Amino acid sequence: MASSDAQGQRVAVIGGGLVGALNACFLAKRNFQVDVYEAREDIRVAEFTRGRSINLALSYRGRQALKAIGLEDQVVSKGVPMRARMIHSLSGKKSAIPYGNKSQYILSISREKLNKDLLTAVESYPNAKVHFGHKLWKCRPEEGVVTVLGPDQVPRDVTCDLIVGCDGAYSTVRAHLMKKPRFDYSQQYIPHGYMELTIPPKNGEYAMEPNFLHIWPRNAFMMIALPNMDKSFTCTLFMPFEEFEKLLTSDDVLDFFQRNFPDAIPLMGEQALMRDFFLLPAQPMISVKCSPFHLKSHCVLMGDAAHAIVPFFGQGMNAGFEDCLVFDELMDKFNNNLSMCLPEFSRFRIPDDHAISDLSMYNYIEVAFTRIRYHEAVQRWHWQKKVINKGLFGLGSLIAIGSAYLLVQHMPPRPLGFLRRLPWTGTTGYWNRSIGDFWQVPWSH
Amino acid sequence: MASSDAQGQRVAVIGGGLVGALNACFLAKRNFQVDVYEAREDIRVAEFTRGRSINLALSYRGRQALKAIGLEDQVVSKGVPMRARMIHSLSGKKSAIPYGNKSQYILSISREKLNKDLLTAVESYPNAKVHFGHKLWKCRPEEGVVTVLGPDQVPRDVTCDLIVGCDGAYSTVRAHLMKKPRFDYSQQYIPHGYMELTIPPKNGEYAMEPNFLHIWPRNAFMMIALPNMDKSFTCTLFMPFEEFEKLLTSDDVLDFFQRNFPDAIPLMGEQALMRDFFLLPAQPMISVKCSPFHLKSHCVLMGDAAHAIVPFFGQGMNAGFEDCLVFDELMDKFNNNLSMCLPEFSRFRIPDDHAISDLSMYNYIEVAFTRIRYHEAVQRWHWQKKVINKGLFGLGSLIAIGSAYLLVQHMPPRPLGFLRRLPWTGTTGYWNRSIGDFWQVPWSH
Repeated sequence: MASSDAQGQRVAVIGGGLVGALNACFLAKRNFQVDVYEAREDIRVAEFTRGRSINLALSYRGRQALKAIGLEDQVVSKGVPMRARMIHSLSGKKSAIPYGNKSQYILSISREKLNKDLLTAVESYPNAKVHFGHKLWKCRPEEGVVTVLGPDQVPRDVTCDLIVGCDGAYSTVRAHLMKKPRFDYSQQYIPHGYMELTIPPKNGEYAMEPNFLHIWPRNAFMMIALPNMDKSFTCTLFMPFEEFEKLLTSDDVLDFFQRNFPDAIPLMGEQALMRDFFLLPAQPMISVKCSPFHLKSHCVLMGDAAHAIVPFFGQGMNAGFEDCLVFDELMDKFNNNLSMCLPEFSRFRIPDDHAISDLSMYNYIEVAFTRIRYHEAVQRWHWQKKVINKGLFGLGSLIAIGSAYLLVQHMPPRPLGFLRRLPWTGTTGYWNRSIGDFWQVPWSH
Repeated sequence: MASSDAQGQRVAVIGGGLVGALNACFLAKRNFQVDVYEAREDIRVAEFTRGRSINLALSYRGRQALKAIGLEDQVVSKGVPMRARMIHSLSGKKSAIPYGNKSQYILSISREKLNKDLLTAVESYPNAKVHFGHKLWKCRPEEGVVTVLGPDQVPRDVTCDLIVGCDGAYSTVRAHLMKKPRFDYSQQYIPHGYMELTIPPKNGEYAMEPNFLHIWPRNAFMMIALPNMDKSFTCTLFMPFEEFEKLLTSDDVLDFFQRNFPDAIPLMGEQALMRDFFLLPAQPMISVKCSPFHLKSHCVLMGDAAHAIVPFFGQGMNAGFEDCLVFDELMDKFNNNLSMCLPEFSRFRIPDDHAISDLSMYNYIEVAFTRIRYHEAVQRWHWQKKVINKGLFGLGSLIAIGSAYLLVQHMPPRPLGFLRRLPWTGTTGYWNRSIGDFWQVPWSH
């Protein structure tokens, strides 16, 4: 019954990244005619380009979405389980903190491999097609038209019944919705940037314990490392831009690592560290919120296009994947009726996506700025669990609770700001002098 | 000295509204070559178009800016002094609340007349020109190029040393800055809309006491009326969109007015009220914040383009005018050195513009949503004065303190939400269940 409505209806999915490709599978499975427009070349044939995070943490929500399109096992088999965090102290001492019980773990997944698998899955549907090298130029959702620029750079109008914007944090689809009446929006950059570095295999084996998310907590900055299938680790250094800007020469960098991450230098290799450090500048991190996620029955945003979040909860991809799953469940419920499903998706999903955005920012501020005392951190941890158990998050996310969060308990204090649970709202709230000066701190719920 | 640098440098001012025209005067006076691009026709010759607020409250800050370009007396002579608020109760009882001492008053000014006077003032400078019917199509601030579409619709590139974005709440210049790295931005619509209505003269005289800002406080909605020079009043009805949407027929409207503003019906005239009510739909109100206000030495935003605020403090135009004055003072200080002046403008001005934005929203929420008790309202009033006296605002703004604020003291309670001064920050903070659900509530400082 449900799928009979969909047949013959055309959906234009803008963006063939992780969320766009997954969404295309859901929609194709539902018998829509699906066209995915992806600005970049096919990553399965083109050379891999740097600039995005290399690996990602896949947790329960993400897996449930993959399961619904039959890809869970395939993806999980290409991931490296991380059963605990491994904290690296300045002295080189390491201590493990499990995520939960022994059966609970998150997976380190290659963004590139996952995206390739998803694109191949899209193309397995005869009613779905991915148009690479096709950039969205403009769209008129109410008229059901998207204008794309193909490799020939000639604008081409394509008609469709639904536009699904999965075009990421800097979404062009969202930029069009922003001009519509009563569309709320915020974008906020945090003072930190990130940079990816590498720990290569050592004698053909992992140079550190593989089944861990490694963390080097260091006051206002930190480094993490996630294992790859090729036995390397990808490290991510998080640090305020103003600190990055002080490191201008190889000597600066070496000195900085000697002071802060001495145990990482031999693992990375001095020469390779210098090369990697200056390969790309530090990348910014943006937090985007908007409301609604949809325009009438014509257009809907998912993933980073709807809610780019800072990465300190490890939930960016998982939240985007869950968007697709939630939307799919609503399409079931409303028999593919877009004019009912889209408003309900906004109504139902926005509180959750705003909550994970706030929690991610909360973790960021705790990690980077607080001098919170150990027992207070534990209290908050309990409070966070309470939020989760209340149903804001399902049981699954317990295993995904940010590695960053536990960090707090292992960090030397730093008197840069402070946080509060706001007693009269019973909700997350935070105020921080540094951030407050820099920008309003959004909060909600 | 100062002006010698400016000579020969070209400034493109985008927007010839109130702030754009005033800014053009400041810049022309400083010997820049100034071109103003205004999308609309010359309002001095074209027919007046509805859709913007018809009159505005001019207070101390705005007057100081006009004074600096020699226009204060001319503008003040065309304004109607409002020496107090006049509260209209449901029973028709009226009670006056002065703004301050007897010499303190604000002025009701016609937006149209003021804009005309400012445009004529711009054109009195031989080094300034206003290009009407010229819409900004795109800009490349770092290359010093703006592309405008004139009446012939042919894109034309114009070079300039500085782009000044005064193109209002939906600024195109700002949309370009938004794509630059680390530009923070938020836009938030409030649940209320506004609609303008008219109380015509009665037997050639004002139909109510002229030297007052008339206010009909009614729980979650309210009406105000400002006097015009032609002895009419322009009324503005503020009400949630969902309430507007219930009033579909003339009978609905009449019934609504009979229940809420019975004394206004004979003043407006039943027929005229019906005509005016259905002339235009209720208009949305947007609150916009961004940071920074500038891009290097190339581009700067002022007025609503930088900080559209909700109108409940009567400070929108005044804050925009003060932007121009503050910028002018910095240009003096830095000898027209744009690469020093622009970053300093952001650094210095953003906290003040964010503060007036927050205070305006704070007033809105108090007016629309609180059941705050009388003595608490007075406590807050004192606290607000303290903020002002601390130097966040100068003495002048005391006379401009929102009429809306005092309203609180005359409103029946309505249990929709609540506000708090946040004790640990000593700053404005608010949380409201209705608004919170609808959107994050921004706060700062």
